[in-house]
Amino acid sequence: MLDVYLLGSGGMMPLPGRWLSSLLVRHGSSLLLFDCGEGTQIPLRAAGWGLRAIDAIFLTHYHADHCSGLPGLLLTLGNAERVEPLQIYGPPGLHAVVRGLRVVAPQLPFAVECHELRGGEEFALGELRVHTLAVRHSLPCLSYTLERPRGRRFLPERARALGVPLPLWKRLQRGETVEWEGRRVPPEAVLGPPRPGVKLAFVTDTRPLPSIPPFIAGAQLFVCEGMYGDPADLPRAIENAHMLFREAAALARDGGVERLWLTHFSPALTDPHAWLHEARAIFPATTIGRTGLTITLRFAEDTDDAASASAQAG
Amino acid sequence: MLDVYLLGSGGMMPLPGRWLSSLLVRHGSSLLLFDCGEGTQIPLRAAGWGLRAIDAIFLTHYHADHCSGLPGLLLTLGNAERVEPLQIYGPPGLHAVVRGLRVVAPQLPFAVECHELRGGEEFALGELRVHTLAVRHSLPCLSYTLERPRGRRFLPERARALGVPLPLWKRLQRGETVEWEGRRVPPEAVLGPPRPGVKLAFVTDTRPLPSIPPFIAGAQLFVCEGMYGDPADLPRAIENAHMLFREAAALARDGGVERLWLTHFSPALTDPHAWLHEARAIFPATTIGRTGLTITLRFAEDTDDAASASAQAG
Repeated sequence: MLDVYLLGSGGMMPLPGRWLSSLLVRHGSSLLLFDCGEGTQIPLRAAGWGLRAIDAIFLTHYHADHCSGLPGLLLTLGNAERVEPLQIYGPPGLHAVVRGLRVVAPQLPFAVECHELRGGEEFALGELRVHTLAVRHSLPCLSYTLERPRGRRFLPERARALGVPLPLWKRLQRGETVEWEGRRVPPEAVLGPPRPGVKLAFVTDTRPLPSIPPFIAGAQLFVCEGMYGDPADLPRAIENAHMLFREAAALARDGGVERLWLTHFSPALTDPHAWLHEARAIFPATTIGRTGLTITLRFAEDTDDAASASAQAG
Repeated sequence: MLDVYLLGSGGMMPLPGRWLSSLLVRHGSSLLLFDCGEGTQIPLRAAGWGLRAIDAIFLTHYHADHCSGLPGLLLTLGNAERVEPLQIYGPPGLHAVVRGLRVVAPQLPFAVECHELRGGEEFALGELRVHTLAVRHSLPCLSYTLERPRGRRFLPERARALGVPLPLWKRLQRGETVEWEGRRVPPEAVLGPPRPGVKLAFVTDTRPLPSIPPFIAGAQLFVCEGMYGDPADLPRAIENAHMLFREAAALARDGGVERLWLTHFSPALTDPHAWLHEARAIFPATTIGRTGLTITLRFAEDTDDAASASAQAG
């Protein structure tokens, strides 16, 4: 349902062997990109999922390590003869940032449509739902969740028991109320209980906040910054408005997510695995992010009482 | 005297395994950078020559593949606690480009001083001389040469023959005329013939021009674009204002340079070596550029009749 590919795991600056943190998501024939730091187009190309199909870019904020790859990527999309409009989302200031960076990419064969968000928005993107949350960094910063909602299951045995004529079933399945021979059946009468969809959360460049666990609640995948592993770096994390591994893990636990990918490591953190135990002590299903880490998030098995979505590692 | 390091060899966009074309030069404790496309700071770091010591950046033009790595590099220099002013040189429009790109790097602990050049300028940079030439691309574009001039040799046997007192020799060596006991000796009288210095030429993103051979004349190293190898790409080279390998080689031959490094390969040119013979048929001392290609350009051996500088591969 949602294919997810971690393009990089670095913060602050791209390093030899460590691309800047950004995330690629595929839904059907469409690609979505979260953040676009310097060099992001290189692992993007190496991923082999294509480039031209990027329909939307979500920027968390306007530090260079999250957006300075934008002009190069726009030009590359142009060279790939993209003509469809591209949507870019980000916190206030987006128009000025895109205008500034496009000083070296003034002419493109497609429209770039910028959407400034303040946090708290919810909107549809095709079959997907996007939610935003304002988080706390040294400048305005957003977190995102992406959800693929799942419809309630149609129960043919109930429709049959209620005597609904077969030609009307399709309308019930579409969520419409049907009427025939003076009788009336609403869709709720023939649908199973609500079913969880698929949910992905992307949270980076913020201190932990009480608003984050409810925001990420139930996500199959929580991609979260872990700028520092060593708990002794807490003062630095506070000063720079970032998180320790253990803080990200506590958010994952409190949000009841299925798994956590840590990313956005400080350049000084040369071996993030050395601190993985810090996170796993709090949230066992933690993985150290790296370029090429991939997962496919799917709907749960459709059993009669399926109550939770499952995800399978790709 | 001049250490030279090719940081990348790609044009248009950075690719997995091929950084964008840019050149690093070390002179004493100072570093100079020619062009700064997306990702340039990564091979720059891998080179291991340091980052903080970059004192000047020369931009050929404002296509993204030559300058969009600027904001990230500026921030990285800032994080390295550079405080000395940084000089940036480029064709007209430089102020607007730097202002635009710095939308994501507004605060730096050092001054950025921009110098717009039209081509034809010559100026000193410490012991070095910089020359510029306006070339022909799809927007204003400059080529650069960097020279380390060499003084004429002081000939003690002549000073002795002219009876110059020993305490005055230093002044003659500094190029001053000396007088004593009513006698007068100009420095020319005790200096050998002019000696060539060291010269590096950087020419990219242009059609070949008659003005280029005299501009690069006698360079120990000529770094030149070769966007296309296949002569069948000539119409494309003309349309996009780039060069074939053989055109770059003809410039090298006509300029009487010692060696040519080809760079700025089209992304479609996956194996530049397949066309090396095209260049070597015209100019044998041609090398296909790649990240890490290095040379040290030195003064020629100081023999009595040394008339040419030599360079040794590093």
